[in-house]
Amino acid sequence: MRFEVLKKAENSRARLGLLQTPHGTIETPVFMPVGTQATVKTMTPEELEQIGAKIILGNTYHLYLRPGHKVVEEAGGLHKFMNWNRSILTDSGGYQVFSLGELREIREEGVTFRSHIDGSLHFIGPETSIEIQNALGADIIMSFDECIPYPATYDYVKNSVQRTSRWAERCKKAHVNPKQTLFGIVQGGLYKDLREESAKDLVSLDFEGYSIGGLSVGEPKENMYEVLDYTVPLLPEEKPRYLMGVGSPDAIFEGVLRGIDMFDCVLPTRIARNGTVFTRKGKLVVRNAVYARDFSPLDHDCDCYVCRNYTRAYIRHLINAKEVLGIRLTTIHNLYFLLNLMKDIRRAIEGGYLSEFKNEFFESFGYKQEF
Amino acid sequence: MRFEVLKKAENSRARLGLLQTPHGTIETPVFMPVGTQATVKTMTPEELEQIGAKIILGNTYHLYLRPGHKVVEEAGGLHKFMNWNRSILTDSGGYQVFSLGELREIREEGVTFRSHIDGSLHFIGPETSIEIQNALGADIIMSFDECIPYPATYDYVKNSVQRTSRWAERCKKAHVNPKQTLFGIVQGGLYKDLREESAKDLVSLDFEGYSIGGLSVGEPKENMYEVLDYTVPLLPEEKPRYLMGVGSPDAIFEGVLRGIDMFDCVLPTRIARNGTVFTRKGKLVVRNAVYARDFSPLDHDCDCYVCRNYTRAYIRHLINAKEVLGIRLTTIHNLYFLLNLMKDIRRAIEGGYLSEFKNEFFESFGYKQEF
Ligand SMILES: [Zn+2]
Ligand SMILES: [Zn+2]
Repeated sequence: MRFEVLKKAENSRARLGLLQTPHGTIETPVFMPVGTQATVKTMTPEELEQIGAKIILGNTYHLYLRPGHKVVEEAGGLHKFMNWNRSILTDSGGYQVFSLGELREIREEGVTFRSHIDGSLHFIGPETSIEIQNALGADIIMSFDECIPYPATYDYVKNSVQRTSRWAERCKKAHVNPKQTLFGIVQGGLYKDLREESAKDLVSLDFEGYSIGGLSVGEPKENMYEVLDYTVPLLPEEKPRYLMGVGSPDAIFEGVLRGIDMFDCVLPTRIARNGTVFTRKGKLVVRNAVYARDFSPLDHDCDCYVCRNYTRAYIRHLINAKEVLGIRLTTIHNLYFLLNLMKDIRRAIEGGYLSEFKNEFFESFGYKQEF
Repeated sequence: MRFEVLKKAENSRARLGLLQTPHGTIETPVFMPVGTQATVKTMTPEELEQIGAKIILGNTYHLYLRPGHKVVEEAGGLHKFMNWNRSILTDSGGYQVFSLGELREIREEGVTFRSHIDGSLHFIGPETSIEIQNALGADIIMSFDECIPYPATYDYVKNSVQRTSRWAERCKKAHVNPKQTLFGIVQGGLYKDLREESAKDLVSLDFEGYSIGGLSVGEPKENMYEVLDYTVPLLPEEKPRYLMGVGSPDAIFEGVLRGIDMFDCVLPTRIARNGTVFTRKGKLVVRNAVYARDFSPLDHDCDCYVCRNYTRAYIRHLINAKEVLGIRLTTIHNLYFLLNLMKDIRRAIEGGYLSEFKNEFFESFGYKQEF
């Protein structure tokens, strides 16, 4: 992987970059659609290409359990398995394992947990996580971290951060495939000195990129922005920065302004399956009865495949009738909306008017809205 | 609509034809994918075009209840509503209404029934059925018939056939839109003299095409073929013949050999959603564990989008993980398989080797298998 910062904004930490992986070049800041189980829900690879996706996410925990990383490896890796020839990033499995709550037990060695599918007992530690991710073969992989719940006590977070640093070192050692790029993950909850400790530990290990984890887990957004304010400056300028699990339009703007290069989130695809779509004028719950005879497109300002060909009335009918095509269409539109927003954001950084664009977008979108 | 018989086989009643509607020309014998609720489940119109579908089915009963025929009419008709510019055929609603069992009451005037969605009370008679189908605006529409359950007593069927003939006459009178073509439906269960009575009544009304209904409702296939043997010759040579609700590969062959021009069936899309696909070597339950590491295509003899790009292992994983893309892929393949089979059947009629092709196909497919 190669990363290059092309331009830095003057009034913020926002920056334009180019990320090169064995599967293509990605302009940053970038939004990465989530393909948990080797598919971005409802979509084909061609459809992802058509909306401009350059990199997608795969989830180590899910793929390990089903179909199993060995099956994916036999298929020739995740790219071949799912027929996606552009870039892929896999997470470490940490987030999902730690979300299991009662089902898991954490030790220095790693985590023992029960499958959410069949209750079977499994173990993932730093070395296992890397082994699985090596088998999956994503372009960018993550070190194994503990994702701390919110809220958490100082002592709990301190212990966890130190263990995550030790795990990061073990991941670095275990990772041998030169075609894959390993990122370290900064943790530390909402405690400034622990974020600093985590960042310092990870930077000393010299990863090729840095993720900021443990955010967007229930804390107020202001706290998340505050963490970014003091954490991002601790990371090397010349390396990519990835804010994990964040992808609402407002948080993308705020993250970009604070120096984030990469985002991912299930939000656009999840709300799509619930019949909610993004528009430049805010969210629209297209399954509502008010759209039964609305023969206009989802978003008047959108030129995606869906908005060029279908009406709110038709999409509302499909979702109402539980027809798969309905959630296919809302998913395509929502991802296009976000990928297109990223393009506009990059253009605004290039043109030096990101703050103005943000204000304009926020006013039109009607923030504060909750997604 | 115009229909032209291009060629008749020498050793059977099979024939090649051209059916011209306001939305295009259709080569017959043709298979029509079913789009019950204004969508062929999981597919976009472009995908249907890509697999070669020229005409699809819409269901009057379902569209009347949801989104309502008035909504579809306001949208500019079913073609515009669902963004499908090729031909559409709608059924009369009879089949669904009569499938409701306890929920409906039949009188001379029509049928009172309760919605399967919310239990609300509705009435459809011959005139209402035509009114709804006029609003939907399909190229080919059906007269309102009673679809008799199997088995049924002679007296019940006789009464019903005579009422269906009276309803057919009322439908003919009610139908005024010259852009839509109205077919009559021959009923009569498994009783030869009642099929004859029904055919005679309908032919005397001079419809532009004739459907054969009330088959594939649970009777042995031999009985269905027998009914076709004595019913088809009663219908005018120069008009299209549509065997309703039939679409398994064996029944398509047997129907074509007996002079049928049009078929429809939910079978290929329904079994697809259950993880079963057609192959030239018989059916294949791709969700089975035996395919977990099978990196070959669904059907080695198929050149569809799915077989060119995906493996059994991947599709099995998707269906196993309940991912929508899985049933999208099996649906595309199954419909392509049938549409391609129809193409081969037409070529065989053209070349005069339909019986040989049938024997070859049956042997390769492994009939008798049940779908
Ligand atoms: Zn759109
Ligand atoms: Zn195929």
